[in-house]
Amino acid sequence: MTKRVAIIGAGPSGLAQLRAFQSAKAKGADIPEIVCFEKQSNWGGLWNYTWRTGLDEHGEPVHCSMYRYLWSNGPKEGLEFADYSFEEHFGKQIASYPPRAVLFDYIEGRVKKAGVRDLIRFSTTIRMVTYNEDRGNFTITAHDLKNDRMYSEDFDNVIVASGHFSVPNVPEYPGFDRFNGRVLHAHDFRDAREFAGKDLLLLGASYSAEDIGSQCWKYGAKSITTCYRSAPMGFKWPDNWQEVQQLVRVDENTAYFADGSSKKVDAIILCTGYKHHFPFLPDDLRLKTKNRLATADLYKGVAYVHNPKIFFLGMQDQWFTFNMFDAQAWWVRDAIMGRLSIPADKAVLEKDVVDRVAAEDAGADAHDAIHYQGEYVKELIAETDYPSFDVDGACEAFFEWKDHKKANIMTFRDNAYRSVITGTMAPVHHTPWKDALEDTMESYLKN
Amino acid sequence: MTKRVAIIGAGPSGLAQLRAFQSAKAKGADIPEIVCFEKQSNWGGLWNYTWRTGLDEHGEPVHCSMYRYLWSNGPKEGLEFADYSFEEHFGKQIASYPPRAVLFDYIEGRVKKAGVRDLIRFSTTIRMVTYNEDRGNFTITAHDLKNDRMYSEDFDNVIVASGHFSVPNVPEYPGFDRFNGRVLHAHDFRDAREFAGKDLLLLGASYSAEDIGSQCWKYGAKSITTCYRSAPMGFKWPDNWQEVQQLVRVDENTAYFADGSSKKVDAIILCTGYKHHFPFLPDDLRLKTKNRLATADLYKGVAYVHNPKIFFLGMQDQWFTFNMFDAQAWWVRDAIMGRLSIPADKAVLEKDVVDRVAAEDAGADAHDAIHYQGEYVKELIAETDYPSFDVDGACEAFFEWKDHKKANIMTFRDNAYRSVITGTMAPVHHTPWKDALEDTMESYLKN
Repeated sequence: MTKRVAIIGAGPSGLAQLRAFQSAKAKGADIPEIVCFEKQSNWGGLWNYTWRTGLDEHGEPVHCSMYRYLWSNGPKEGLEFADYSFEEHFGKQIASYPPRAVLFDYIEGRVKKAGVRDLIRFSTTIRMVTYNEDRGNFTITAHDLKNDRMYSEDFDNVIVASGHFSVPNVPEYPGFDRFNGRVLHAHDFRDAREFAGKDLLLLGASYSAEDIGSQCWKYGAKSITTCYRSAPMGFKWPDNWQEVQQLVRVDENTAYFADGSSKKVDAIILCTGYKHHFPFLPDDLRLKTKNRLATADLYKGVAYVHNPKIFFLGMQDQWFTFNMFDAQAWWVRDAIMGRLSIPADKAVLEKDVVDRVAAEDAGADAHDAIHYQGEYVKELIAETDYPSFDVDGACEAFFEWKDHKKANIMTFRDNAYRSVITGTMAPVHHTPWKDALEDTMESYLKN
Repeated sequence: MTKRVAIIGAGPSGLAQLRAFQSAKAKGADIPEIVCFEKQSNWGGLWNYTWRTGLDEHGEPVHCSMYRYLWSNGPKEGLEFADYSFEEHFGKQIASYPPRAVLFDYIEGRVKKAGVRDLIRFSTTIRMVTYNEDRGNFTITAHDLKNDRMYSEDFDNVIVASGHFSVPNVPEYPGFDRFNGRVLHAHDFRDAREFAGKDLLLLGASYSAEDIGSQCWKYGAKSITTCYRSAPMGFKWPDNWQEVQQLVRVDENTAYFADGSSKKVDAIILCTGYKHHFPFLPDDLRLKTKNRLATADLYKGVAYVHNPKIFFLGMQDQWFTFNMFDAQAWWVRDAIMGRLSIPADKAVLEKDVVDRVAAEDAGADAHDAIHYQGEYVKELIAETDYPSFDVDGACEAFFEWKDHKKANIMTFRDNAYRSVITGTMAPVHHTPWKDALEDTMESYLKN
């Protein structure tokens, strides 16, 4: 096979793609030449933690949105690789909400075993991708940051796996330019202890606000105020946590809300989401979509309808994560290797997108959304040799998780679930999450 | 004239270039078509203050390295435009160390008067510049951020005026990943009041460390510790400010220095300089230079020796600023318009660079450096119609300024100097700098 395939990004999606190709090769298939470009100096994407914020050591935007004491905010039983269980990696079953270092180790374990590291060009960012109409291929301009060398190479296919939780959506409110404390986006949040003893305002009512607020509460913030635009998160918050209506303005030290209330605050954290941002893709290749389960313009959620030689992984909003990236990566691999065919009629591709959007829109609540994405994962894996697993069982873990959060947002991580890959129950963690200030891998694995 | 000229950036250098061309046009010359691309939504470059840090509202790196209460750290008499005095702009002479809002207003005044705003495409960043060997021109790929539209246009000349104090040089020290407080580069420093009551560590011994430390001291930091690699700044610091040897490592809350001492600190500010960073320039066009008075690879300090159709403004380390950018912009204008000729022999261009480097290296101290850069400004303005001014007089202001800093680093801004453009003395400011916590333009102009 003489095809050349570029993968942009070596995070969970890009690594899934590398594993997908390696898996085919291990079974004797003739696979394309693969080059994976990774901006960071190591793999793992968002799971590759750094203390850095803003611009990195090469002057490039920092990819990491991870914070120091992050633990998985959903049960690991919903994201387990079907071809590499937690038990295979750790030699035993582990508790259900691993801290980031534990999850990084797990992700890395599979690709170390697969032996794909040599396919990755680290510290290399993509400056531009262009499609050559005449030759039917792509030219990628990459920048080797360590050697400060820019160069171009041609590829038959491009797989964009650069993520969409790295470029913050940063709104402005009146008075931000005169507020005396720190104003930061969740993307730049790192060590919760910076805010110990502080009165914090968090804008937003989704995962970032919930989790960063919880973490700051855990590590000693004086008070947490979260404000929402449409609806409150509505959990049973601790006494020093209040949810208020949307922010109207701030002055030097006080925030004023739509309900007429105000609060003196020391810092403002904008938990206001992320952008799909592809500065290296020109207009004819650039995906523009909202953060939703059924993205715009992607056939089967992965092939770009305007040019199905370019693929995008993991661009959906996510209940399913690692195993959904796997399902996508195996599918994309088979499309590139000709094991699956993408319809030549663009109208068919576009109808697929329209149908997915309608199916998502027909759902009423989070339960339906989880079910919808579970069905999507099932659909993709049915078309490849990715190991089939009990997707409905994973959905059940998500439903239980939602109930546990509703019961007590500060104890939901103390629960345990059954693996849908190996069938074993996770142990209950030795220390309640709220008391587990020390969260190294060594500490977490002491069960 | 059918030439098309692109200017990248509408900060002090890019605006000087616009003014240079407009000045020629006002005198009846036939000038090229000018397009200025500016990433920000307003002009002023670094002087266009924002509370934002990291990535901006479009997901692009924030250009601003300016902080909220910044005052000029050199006398305005050293940077005054020869064609637009402070007295012309403000209707009177003003004190010598204006806060940023006052300087922004002054910079803007000249280009408002020149009527060049329509030549600028705001909220437009450059993704790539390529040189077309066959046609002898450049293709610029720009991204209109507001409309999310990428497009390409051809130009005969490109003038890079994107600055080199926007992309931080961010070193890592052992323990940064476990330090519990904020670690930030000077680029992300905004409101000094965030650090009131804190013990601060600043890395560095140049302008950023000196000025950010002074500002945090002014606004109530509990203590300032600055650490140096080669030599201390050596000013007479206040009692709660100490200079120590270089940082070796940190742990959760303590910094350890090469002299064996340690200090518990709440935050670390990296005043470790900036990078020349041109992600939009390929290898054949990308300037690589140290931050020094005689840059690498620029004939006359502006024309790229490897392709003198592309120019760089303001890429030097700077004693002279606005008026040096003017001198460069007028020279580049005349080179593009054929009023000056750039030697065709590359060896001549390269020798010019070598000679400048040697001349700078021959200097012994800051006095020599100021003199060296003054001579460079004189050299350029002698070759154009930029209004001649008393460059030696500006040098004298710098020498006095150095002496005032040496005498008292916390009062040097209370001094006044004579304009070399209008000959009038600046008034002494109504409030000593250290007591002038309120620093709006309205307040500053009350003399």
